[in-house]
Amino acid sequence: MSGENAGEEKSIVAIIVSKNSLDMAYPPLIIAQTAAAMGMEAHLFFTFWGLYLIKKGGAEKAKLPGFMKFFTGMMKKKMAKVGIKPLHEMIRDAKAMGVKFHACQMTMEVLGIKREDLIDEVDDVMGAASFLEIAEKAKVTLFI
Amino acid sequence: MSGENAGEEKSIVAIIVSKNSLDMAYPPLIIAQTAAAMGMEAHLFFTFWGLYLIKKGGAEKAKLPGFMKFFTGMMKKKMAKVGIKPLHEMIRDAKAMGVKFHACQMTMEVLGIKREDLIDEVDDVMGAASFLEIAEKAKVTLFI
Amino acid sequence: MSGENAGEEKSIVAIIVSKNSLDMAYPPLIIAQTAAAMGMEAHLFFTFWGLYLIKKGGAEKAKLPGFMKFFTGMMKKKMAKVGIKPLHEMIRDAKAMGVKFHACQMTMEVLGIKREDLIDEVDDVMGAASFLEIAEKAKVTLFI
Repeated sequence: MSGENAGEEKSIVAIIVSKNSLDMAYPPLIIAQTAAAMGMEAHLFFTFWGLYLIKKGGAEKAKLPGFMKFFTGMMKKKMAKVGIKPLHEMIRDAKAMGVKFHACQMTMEVLGIKREDLIDEVDDVMGAASFLEIAEKAKVTLFI
Repeated sequence: MSGENAGEEKSIVAIIVSKNSLDMAYPPLIIAQTAAAMGMEAHLFFTFWGLYLIKKGGAEKAKLPGFMKFFTGMMKKKMAKVGIKPLHEMIRDAKAMGVKFHACQMTMEVLGIKREDLIDEVDDVMGAASFLEIAEKAKVTLFI
Repeated sequence: MSGENAGEEKSIVAIIVSKNSLDMAYPPLIIAQTAAAMGMEAHLFFTFWGLYLIKKGGAEKAKLPGFMKFFTGMMKKKMAKVGIKPLHEMIRDAKAMGVKFHACQMTMEVLGIKREDLIDEVDDVMGAASFLEIAEKAKVTLFI
C-alpha cells in the first residue's frame, strides 16, 4: 500500500481478525488502539467470521462463544465497570486514532456481503495479497 | 534449516497450523498460497489438531466447529460458488507452488500418527526448535 | 522495557496467551521453552481466558474445550506417555529457563483477580502498551 517512501520509521502492527465472538473481538481492537496511541501504524484485516464485526450492527451483536454466550451480558457489565467501552465504540475510537480497517474481499464474496453492508469505518476492501504486503513490512503480525 | 547464505532476500512467512476445523484450515492455506504467488517462501507447521489436516483423508473430513458443523456442507457450497477449491486440492496446489509442509514430531508421538499416515505433500517431520529457526528469519509469523 | 542498549543480539519471541483450554495452553509453553533452550528471550503475556492459567490452581484445572472436555484425562495420559509434563510443571520449568511471565492488567481488573491470586512464577503485571514495546522488538510474535 503506502510506505514505499524511504526514511520512514513508523512501526507497523498488522492483525488478522478472524473471529466475531466478544472475547476474540476485543484483543485486536485493544492492541490496535494501543499501537496507535504509541505512534505505531495499526492495520486490521477482517476475514472469515471477523467480517461480521464490521458489518452494520455486527459489533453490537457479538457474544461470548458456545455455552458462555449466556454470560455475555455479565461480561459486558464487568468490562463497563472498569471503563472498557462497547465494541462498536471501540471501533469508532480506533478509527479516530488512525487505525486502518480492511475488509477481506474473498470473505465478502463467500458470505454475500456487499460494501454498503459494512460500517463507515471501513477504509477499503482488499485481498490477502494486499494485506500480506502490509504484513511483510510490519514489526508485529498477529492472527486473532 | 537453509538460508544461512548471505545475500538472500526472499521474505519468509511462517505459519503454525493448530486447528483442523474448516474455518481455521483455510486461512493458513490461503495465506501460504498467496505468499508463494507473491514470490515469498511459505512454511506451514502442522501441530496439535492441525496435524489431522495432513493425515490421509483428514482434509476431506474437516468440518465447521461446534454446532456449526451441521452447516459445513452449506459453507462448502458457498465457497465453491466463488471458486474456492476444497481443502485437499488447496493443499495439492500450495505444494505445487512451493509451500513447505512440516509435521510436528511431538504431536505425531502424542496422537500415535506415523509418517506413512501422512499425505505425500508433507516435506518433513520436525520439532518446535527446527520450526522456530525458520520463524526467527520470517517477516510474518502467525499462529492459526 | 529493557533492551535500549545497542549491540544486543538476542532474538525475542513474544507470545500473547489468550486461552486457558489444555490444547491452547501447551503451545505457548512449548514454544517459549524451546525458544529459551535455543538462547532466545521468551515472553508470555497472559490475557483474557489465558490469565486463568497463571491464577493459583488454574493450570491444574485446564481442560479440552467444549465436548472434548470429557477426553481431557485421556489426552493427559497420552501426553504423559511421551514425556510431556503437566502444565503447572511446564510453567515451573519455563520460569527456571528464563521465560518471562507477564499478567495483563486490564484482564485482572475485569475478572477481579489480584496479584496475590497469581502464581509465584509471574514476573509482573503490565498493560498492552508495555507488552507491545517488547513485541515491537521481537522476531516472532504470536497470538495463541
